[in-house]
Amino acid sequence: MRTSSRGDVDAFIVMDVLGAARAMEAAGRHIIHMEVGQPATGAPQAAREALARAMEQGTLGYTEALGLPALRARIARLYGEWYGVDLAPSRVVVTAGSSAGFQLAFLSLFETGDRVAIGDPGYPSYRNILKALGLTPVRIPTGAESRWQLTPDHLTGDVQGALVASPANPTGTMLDHAALSALMEAARARDIGFVSDEIYHGIDYGTRPVTALEAGDDVYVINSFSKYFCMTGWRIGWMVVPEDHVRRIERLAQNLFICAPHASQVAALAALDCGAEMETNLETYRANRAHLLAELPKAGFARIAPPDGAFYLYADVSDLTEDSRALAAEILEDAGVAVTPGLDFDPERGHRSLRFSYAGSTADMIEGAERLKAWFQRRGAA
Amino acid sequence: MRTSSRGDVDAFIVMDVLGAARAMEAAGRHIIHMEVGQPATGAPQAAREALARAMEQGTLGYTEALGLPALRARIARLYGEWYGVDLAPSRVVVTAGSSAGFQLAFLSLFETGDRVAIGDPGYPSYRNILKALGLTPVRIPTGAESRWQLTPDHLTGDVQGALVASPANPTGTMLDHAALSALMEAARARDIGFVSDEIYHGIDYGTRPVTALEAGDDVYVINSFSKYFCMTGWRIGWMVVPEDHVRRIERLAQNLFICAPHASQVAALAALDCGAEMETNLETYRANRAHLLAELPKAGFARIAPPDGAFYLYADVSDLTEDSRALAAEILEDAGVAVTPGLDFDPERGHRSLRFSYAGSTADMIEGAERLKAWFQRRGAA
Repeated sequence: MRTSSRGDVDAFIVMDVLGAARAMEAAGRHIIHMEVGQPATGAPQAAREALARAMEQGTLGYTEALGLPALRARIARLYGEWYGVDLAPSRVVVTAGSSAGFQLAFLSLFETGDRVAIGDPGYPSYRNILKALGLTPVRIPTGAESRWQLTPDHLTGDVQGALVASPANPTGTMLDHAALSALMEAARARDIGFVSDEIYHGIDYGTRPVTALEAGDDVYVINSFSKYFCMTGWRIGWMVVPEDHVRRIERLAQNLFICAPHASQVAALAALDCGAEMETNLETYRANRAHLLAELPKAGFARIAPPDGAFYLYADVSDLTEDSRALAAEILEDAGVAVTPGLDFDPERGHRSLRFSYAGSTADMIEGAERLKAWFQRRGAA
Repeated sequence: MRTSSRGDVDAFIVMDVLGAARAMEAAGRHIIHMEVGQPATGAPQAAREALARAMEQGTLGYTEALGLPALRARIARLYGEWYGVDLAPSRVVVTAGSSAGFQLAFLSLFETGDRVAIGDPGYPSYRNILKALGLTPVRIPTGAESRWQLTPDHLTGDVQGALVASPANPTGTMLDHAALSALMEAARARDIGFVSDEIYHGIDYGTRPVTALEAGDDVYVINSFSKYFCMTGWRIGWMVVPEDHVRRIERLAQNLFICAPHASQVAALAALDCGAEMETNLETYRANRAHLLAELPKAGFARIAPPDGAFYLYADVSDLTEDSRALAAEILEDAGVAVTPGLDFDPERGHRSLRFSYAGSTADMIEGAERLKAWFQRRGAA
């Protein structure tokens, strides 16, 4: 049966590592999960209770394609609470996770064949979704000099779109207001469609992330309940788009998704009022981050990008290997710790890096670090 | 800010009608919903109970991209129960509703620009998803002579893909084993990627629907928990694909969706054992269908396509109007009954038809028919 070349996308390697780790667990091994960006805790208590009530009261049928009006209004209010930004609920689009947000944004903004700038290293699905949708990802190597972020001079007339993430995955680095404004100004000057991935907002360690909406309205902002609100498996997120793009997004969403999962929308609405519970998780990430930043160097992982936010550490392992995939497999097998090879995030240079997620429990991070140190010692002795 | 032409898709009109009806309800009007294909009942009792339990026990994080293994296995078993087909669980892909299934199928099978044959009238999102993904929908007018279905002579060397639905939306007509086999044989001979939409299976009135898997394995079968299992808002469905396509679908699903909603997967697994409850709903549809087939002609809707399955009646209203959208608006305003203009399903000829959904309660269908008859009498008197 025929197949398309556009459908030949790379695997999302972290999901394959997760699969391998689960298979080992099914076979009786105990694995510490430092591969996947998944909080150890589930949806907030009140979110689960709200859904339990809703399941007894209603049929949870289709919602409006743009999302439950109450949820859109509550998300708009979040922008006041978090950033002091006054946002009209009409500009908020509830999506089936940020994954749906990226699809809707790319389809709304870009013609077939358009070139979209993304930074390497970066979230692998950016390039894979772009390719599948018939667009051309333009991967731009970034480094320490720009804190692994795009800069205005990367935005040339040669691209029709650009996407940035702050805090970024896998590095955790952030764009401050000046850097984000400069990027948006360059995009504006060159008619480049600009997308800001803000799904790790709320997860920071000292410096508050800036939303692109603080720098302008001519942007698609993508966010999610997966990370800060611990709702990965619920597939629920949102976008903020320019007012005059709402109706085209509505038409696309009607046809491509019908609506985001109703149950997840109910849970998400309640989650937005669970700030205290979420801050407890942040304490966990803070402790995990401090522990790993202290311990990982003892396991041979000393060169780590500045981890401003999110819950990842991106380590240069070029002194250990030129094959990060093999190294990750070795660590999974020998240490019982699942980590993600940098190839997921940077096809060119990622063979020399690993990503560690510290979204898990502190107990797991302590055990994981012990296992990595023991593995490193055995390795040195071998 | 820039926009793309591919993103300029038609509205899914039924969702707009639903929005208008809800606005009228919010303003105090009582509306009978015969527009949207949404069962009056929600997910089965046991499905909701299973999720309530799961929310107390686990975190409901990401699942495998292809879906929970237990759910894939249980869906495979359904093919034995419903059709006597022996299906390997490895070929089952759990999707975020059939909407995600269509996206994955189209991206896996077709190159940018490929032409895909679909019958008019048909589900509007087929053409709109195809367009958004940079593909070319080839809309083929069908009529009573082929029971509003494609035939092998429609599958020429001029198309790279074809999609059929049985029971079809909006007509409800079905393809029997001979008709489906002939279509698949023609597709096979011409290297046409073949997709079979089977989301209304289980909802039939005398003749059992045939799955394309009874006619061959070189097909993408798309199904959903929305209709028979009454789980529209849960956004959960499945595909069956050829064994050698599973890995490419897995890579696409990892990147475009990560996974289907975990909560919905838990509920769906339990729903599969709720056959008795589902059969009760079928009794309702049967009663609704009989009532409307008897009463609608008294309201001026006498010319209806043969309604083999699903829960729709597609009426030729050319003796009433040349503008089905205006007629639907008039019926909503004057009769308080929401119906869908045929333009949603057939941009060429749909200005002369309306679709009535009888997925609602029998009480609503009785009331709706009374309102329509009263409206028709007033209209004649005017």
